[in-house]
Amino acid sequence: MHILIVHCHPEPRSFNAALKDVASETLEGDGHRVEVSDLYAQNFDPVERPEHFASRADAAYFSALTEQRHHYRRDELATDVRREIERLERADLVILQFPLWWHGPPAMLKGWFDRVFVYGGLYSGQRRFDRGPLRGRRAICSVTTGAPGTTFSTWGRSGDITALMWPIHCSLYYVGFEVLAPQLTYGVQGGGLSYQVDAVFRRQLEADKQRWSGRLEGLANEAPIPFTGWQDWDDDGVLSQTHPLRWRV
Amino acid sequence: MHILIVHCHPEPRSFNAALKDVASETLEGDGHRVEVSDLYAQNFDPVERPEHFASRADAAYFSALTEQRHHYRRDELATDVRREIERLERADLVILQFPLWWHGPPAMLKGWFDRVFVYGGLYSGQRRFDRGPLRGRRAICSVTTGAPGTTFSTWGRSGDITALMWPIHCSLYYVGFEVLAPQLTYGVQGGGLSYQVDAVFRRQLEADKQRWSGRLEGLANEAPIPFTGWQDWDDDGVLSQTHPLRWRV
Repeated sequence: MHILIVHCHPEPRSFNAALKDVASETLEGDGHRVEVSDLYAQNFDPVERPEHFASRADAAYFSALTEQRHHYRRDELATDVRREIERLERADLVILQFPLWWHGPPAMLKGWFDRVFVYGGLYSGQRRFDRGPLRGRRAICSVTTGAPGTTFSTWGRSGDITALMWPIHCSLYYVGFEVLAPQLTYGVQGGGLSYQVDAVFRRQLEADKQRWSGRLEGLANEAPIPFTGWQDWDDDGVLSQTHPLRWRV
Repeated sequence: MHILIVHCHPEPRSFNAALKDVASETLEGDGHRVEVSDLYAQNFDPVERPEHFASRADAAYFSALTEQRHHYRRDELATDVRREIERLERADLVILQFPLWWHGPPAMLKGWFDRVFVYGGLYSGQRRFDRGPLRGRRAICSVTTGAPGTTFSTWGRSGDITALMWPIHCSLYYVGFEVLAPQLTYGVQGGGLSYQVDAVFRRQLEADKQRWSGRLEGLANEAPIPFTGWQDWDDDGVLSQTHPLRWRV
């Protein structure tokens, strides 16, 4: 397999960076090819804005979708966006490694979706969901949180983690990915500052690295999260009235 | 009331900008003071990174939370973050105006949370949720979508809009806000390109502006979305075993 790890954390010695490294080493050790897109190291610009589009379809009014499609077709997307799309197209499996900040991915990674998942290229009105251009590929989020896992349970005050992951899982499915259940590493405290903090950090890290590398070896055989698709929806994009899933609730 | 509108859209003549303007005019017309934080116009940097912190508590290891608290206490936060915090502290009501991009706020606005909601300032372990520093203030998201409203219904393929709004609503509540039900404007097409597109755009805009201004006038009397709070949770941050809400399902 060819694997792309999209890594999003500002500190090179962070827990996230260590999980990225263990994934890279484990997968390469298993004979796969691994490519890393380190968004902070690349100083990736996450803001979708007019300045990224050199030959505007409409110079008077900026519509991100209009310009994305126009520049994709002319092969004139910004260099960093083209590079990320090429990386996605090479990958059989994409791993997103990031900390949960404010109930979602850091702005840097959110903007990777905003800019790289271009209209007219990675999706269109007809080519999305289970007809998305990236279908047949798999994606998984490896996420760290500061708060402990109990608070992310169904009745926990941090919010059910399944609900918090839902938007990003929807986005991955939208372009065609099969989405695997996320790798969740709860209660991660920052490193640095003192020897004591670092000792706790390293002890937790060793356990979580083992858990992650153990799972990575069997990833190819995991069943993805089930989503409904074009066959399930009516003309309005809603689950058909008679669909069996409607009877589950 | 003093009202802060945080506006996030790259095109000054966009539907979002028009909704921002109608909110500003309606509320000023009703005698309120209105302040606008136009994130794109300010070229706000949404990326939380070491470069924003001039006098590091830990120069060897970057932890965003450590540096946020350290710089907040020393009153040495970056100028743009200090300005946004001052705006929040002046506001009785905060309106977030943005388009739904990839199942969430644009990176620019996601990073406004990442950078402005500083640890040690806008929250701490003891001061969050219904004990958050911004308690007593209200917040509302005014959101546009490209896809039609039917696809955002419970069984719709775009995902239930209540679920997609959940992460950002959680973040607003976390610092103490009372969160009002969002103002949802579905099926917004980009303007520009042609007279025909613009005609559809303007017709829809007029209807949605009226709907929004009509609601704004009664906003002070609306009941906020109910959240559980410190009184409801056990020591692990989970809804108590005997809590009446557990019997609702």
